[in-house]
Amino acid sequence: MAHKFSALLVIVTVLTLSPLTAALWPLPQSLTIGSNVLVLSKNFNIQLSAHNAPKDLQDAITRTEYYLRHDNLGRLIVGRGSSDASAIHAAKHLTTLTVSFDSAAPATPRSISAESADDLESRKEAYTLSVPNDGSTAILKANSTLGLFRGLTTFSQLWYEYGGAIYTPEAPIQISDHPAYPYRGFMLDTARNYYPVSDIKRTLDAMSWVKINTFHWHAVDSQSFPLEVPGFMEISEKGAYAPTNVYTTADIADIVSYAGARGIDVVVEIDTPGHTAVIAESHPEHVACPGATPWSAYAHEPPAGQLRIASPATVKFATSLVTAVAKMFPSKFFSTGGDEINENCYTQDTETQQNLKASGQDIEQALSSFTQSTHGALKSMGKTPVVWEEMVLQHDVALSNNTVVMVWISSQNVGAVAQKGFRIIHAASDYFYLDCGMGGWVGDNPNGNSWCNPFKTWQKSYIFDPTAGVSDAQKSLVLGGQHLLWSEQSSPHNLDTAVWPRAASSAELFWSGPALEGTTAQGRNLTTALPRLHDLAFRMANRGMAPIALQPMWCALRPGACDVSA
Amino acid sequence: MAHKFSALLVIVTVLTLSPLTAALWPLPQSLTIGSNVLVLSKNFNIQLSAHNAPKDLQDAITRTEYYLRHDNLGRLIVGRGSSDASAIHAAKHLTTLTVSFDSAAPATPRSISAESADDLESRKEAYTLSVPNDGSTAILKANSTLGLFRGLTTFSQLWYEYGGAIYTPEAPIQISDHPAYPYRGFMLDTARNYYPVSDIKRTLDAMSWVKINTFHWHAVDSQSFPLEVPGFMEISEKGAYAPTNVYTTADIADIVSYAGARGIDVVVEIDTPGHTAVIAESHPEHVACPGATPWSAYAHEPPAGQLRIASPATVKFATSLVTAVAKMFPSKFFSTGGDEINENCYTQDTETQQNLKASGQDIEQALSSFTQSTHGALKSMGKTPVVWEEMVLQHDVALSNNTVVMVWISSQNVGAVAQKGFRIIHAASDYFYLDCGMGGWVGDNPNGNSWCNPFKTWQKSYIFDPTAGVSDAQKSLVLGGQHLLWSEQSSPHNLDTAVWPRAASSAELFWSGPALEGTTAQGRNLTTALPRLHDLAFRMANRGMAPIALQPMWCALRPGACDVSA
Repeated sequence: MAHKFSALLVIVTVLTLSPLTAALWPLPQSLTIGSNVLVLSKNFNIQLSAHNAPKDLQDAITRTEYYLRHDNLGRLIVGRGSSDASAIHAAKHLTTLTVSFDSAAPATPRSISAESADDLESRKEAYTLSVPNDGSTAILKANSTLGLFRGLTTFSQLWYEYGGAIYTPEAPIQISDHPAYPYRGFMLDTARNYYPVSDIKRTLDAMSWVKINTFHWHAVDSQSFPLEVPGFMEISEKGAYAPTNVYTTADIADIVSYAGARGIDVVVEIDTPGHTAVIAESHPEHVACPGATPWSAYAHEPPAGQLRIASPATVKFATSLVTAVAKMFPSKFFSTGGDEINENCYTQDTETQQNLKASGQDIEQALSSFTQSTHGALKSMGKTPVVWEEMVLQHDVALSNNTVVMVWISSQNVGAVAQKGFRIIHAASDYFYLDCGMGGWVGDNPNGNSWCNPFKTWQKSYIFDPTAGVSDAQKSLVLGGQHLLWSEQSSPHNLDTAVWPRAASSAELFWSGPALEGTTAQGRNLTTALPRLHDLAFRMANRGMAPIALQPMWCALRPGACDVSA
Repeated sequence: MAHKFSALLVIVTVLTLSPLTAALWPLPQSLTIGSNVLVLSKNFNIQLSAHNAPKDLQDAITRTEYYLRHDNLGRLIVGRGSSDASAIHAAKHLTTLTVSFDSAAPATPRSISAESADDLESRKEAYTLSVPNDGSTAILKANSTLGLFRGLTTFSQLWYEYGGAIYTPEAPIQISDHPAYPYRGFMLDTARNYYPVSDIKRTLDAMSWVKINTFHWHAVDSQSFPLEVPGFMEISEKGAYAPTNVYTTADIADIVSYAGARGIDVVVEIDTPGHTAVIAESHPEHVACPGATPWSAYAHEPPAGQLRIASPATVKFATSLVTAVAKMFPSKFFSTGGDEINENCYTQDTETQQNLKASGQDIEQALSSFTQSTHGALKSMGKTPVVWEEMVLQHDVALSNNTVVMVWISSQNVGAVAQKGFRIIHAASDYFYLDCGMGGWVGDNPNGNSWCNPFKTWQKSYIFDPTAGVSDAQKSLVLGGQHLLWSEQSSPHNLDTAVWPRAASSAELFWSGPALEGTTAQGRNLTTALPRLHDLAFRMANRGMAPIALQPMWCALRPGACDVSA
């Protein structure tokens, strides 16, 4: 088997001039590596050469230095790096990484946090990194603070540990890097089950390690409303699972700040008008069919309940709520949801029927008016609305052209959304849903199965084609994509194992570009990706995460040996 | 919804005279409860009324008192028990539980540990428990130490917490209990990935909470050999993943002792002759086709490698190894495995072919001789061999009648094993495999799926029929069954979430008896089991485990509301 894999490596080398053994994830757009060992000096430090450097960049440097000293990632080969021992002994030492803005950068740098909330089109994440072989200074440059942060993240992944030495076996290293897609996200549902702030922060850290730049926070849903909203305190007071299961305004500010300092924009979602049953706890007047049974006649899952879109008072309420929530988030984006609206809930609701009669509207017209009100408020705040696909594919809702559409029901629907000219975020259940395959959770069904069975492996999403079904002219509509964790059967207990390292698969897909046969400069494919993904997962574990085991340790230590054809 | 569920409860009450709201798991054979609140006194204590009480029983009492004070499980209803507040205020207080042997018990009690290693037929786990309503002493009695331990476990599950009060809303309580099946197990594979001793101990604790009485330890396999065996130190020295990934003889004694004190017998498995590739690291002379490629031609999963069953030296080696391992475990049972033997590995192995020629045996005859040698050694030590189903269904191996057979490939095979007259342990992949549905792990397959997809839900195993396909005369051959965690894609990171609370499903199945329609005295079914299973999972979480969320918290707080038909 060792022989077989060596042969494979040779082929890759011939194709790309850079063997893919570096533990980098996502793989940079351009990477040249050597084959010399370079050791990190005991007094190695990172020098920031910039005037007025923002605090969050300085903090990122401190964190990077900590990771360099504490990752202690042994190489994932038999012997864990013992074969490098003599080369380590003889190797040059690197004492300095210099971090500086290049000449195209503005004179007064902005913070990582500020740049992370820029519009996607203007968000700058490119950087260059050079690690020489001779012990002279390594150099990281970018024309943005965010770019420098991405480069620091890459630098921290270059190193292994053996016998107390921190080293790379692949010096010199030249990297020039930028993302293939501007949007690389991860979605967490904190409504079906609650996650403490510490869990969210730990997840944000891991997201930043793989250059994910958006936390899509599906904060509330029919089951609970954990978000404390100024002016609407009663909703979380009555709608959170417990007083301790509330994200206070201080918690929210903390999460936004923590994310921003890690290059992550927080796009919050207040799903409307469906998925709002819990609002009936505090505002029964605004909710149609709350808790109606049998729930399956009124909703996709229990409990039933939707905002009364035809009620002028409810439209006003929803618009004010969206406005109040939007004020807490600096992001240019805000999701109003819009999935799984149940018509029967409105048909059976006397008040909705009276409202429709009074206004002369039908349900679809009322939905359009409702949406125009909430979206109008967002636009007046300079924000771009994000919606689930039904809002453009199943309903007759007037949406502004710049609305961003998340495709979730099926990746097959991407073409239809593109046809309508909307920008697209890939979030399809058939590739990116992390909760699929966990069995049915609706209680008493002996043969219940996950609706989106089977389990979505990292391999499945890794070779996803982001522009399948999209014409050349429409390709620019694809902003990127994300993995998603819905929480009907998830909680803090399985957060890490459900998400990591699988969510890293889409992080590389949308940063490095798709890994379709013959399309990548680096010859990326499942075979070459797996050893790097093991490296990432083991590094995550050493940083305190609990990623799931992708394979037996035996396989992790023998790249390629557990492939299908090995 | 509330109305609907109340109606259901009334029906259950009529059928059984005891509503199933007590947080007991597994449900006792006989349970009568009242509807009064009884509070645990601040100075409550458990009095052991016995001469020469064994140390591990005293320790179990101390642990029970700790759980009573620290579980702090709020009722899983809206308000978490706030509706009990006034009744708690007015309630009687229980100050004492008296624990004593009944008159049928031996004069000198043995330890829990000793009784846990008794033969299955003579293992005594019955107990009676009475918790009066008037504040007078509660009484636990049994004719065995192990029975008292089971009763203490039940007693600790009777209590909820609200506002600092520890109470039951269902006094008085009368319980008479014993297991339906003598074998209730859980299997963990510590070879594909390694689990520290602390993880195993935590698992043993949780097993004891649901009265599982056997830890089937699949200790070693082709990928690694973490078991330190006196006289065979070189196997773990060269075959463990790392020096820190070894269960030393002290660790093994610690695990056996910890398990025994919790009523759990440790049945170790040394899988032979297949699944032994790792032995080639230290004893290449005993292994055919080690690391042969393509692996799929030589083994069910990488790496290939099987003991040379036709080699007299290897037969002697395997017999000595089994003997040395068996000496470390007090159990009356020992598994020699015997699954997934690959014929091609032997056909292609020159040495095996020469050995066969020399002895005049064919492969099946050699396998029979090999097995008779290892089993003969076990029998001479007073131990009963346990094997996987292939040994009786796919091979022509001479086995003694008392051999215990684990059915794993399919529950459909139980009848065929019974037909041959062997005792049976249910361990079938179609009901009890906890790793199913996690996607394919063989590396580079984009459409790889779990071979035993889909995920096996708790519901699936809960309504399993242990005697399906078995004649009335053969029913006594069914010893019980177990859930199993194979570790190709599991590790300490997902141990708790993969196992709990799902493994509790078979724990109740085999303790309380099957929950087939119309067969249980208590009217047990999926609908009535789910609230208790939530209670169990939340109690486990409060005791430091990380069970997976079965449903949104909204559902956990509203029994029945998230059933299919709710």
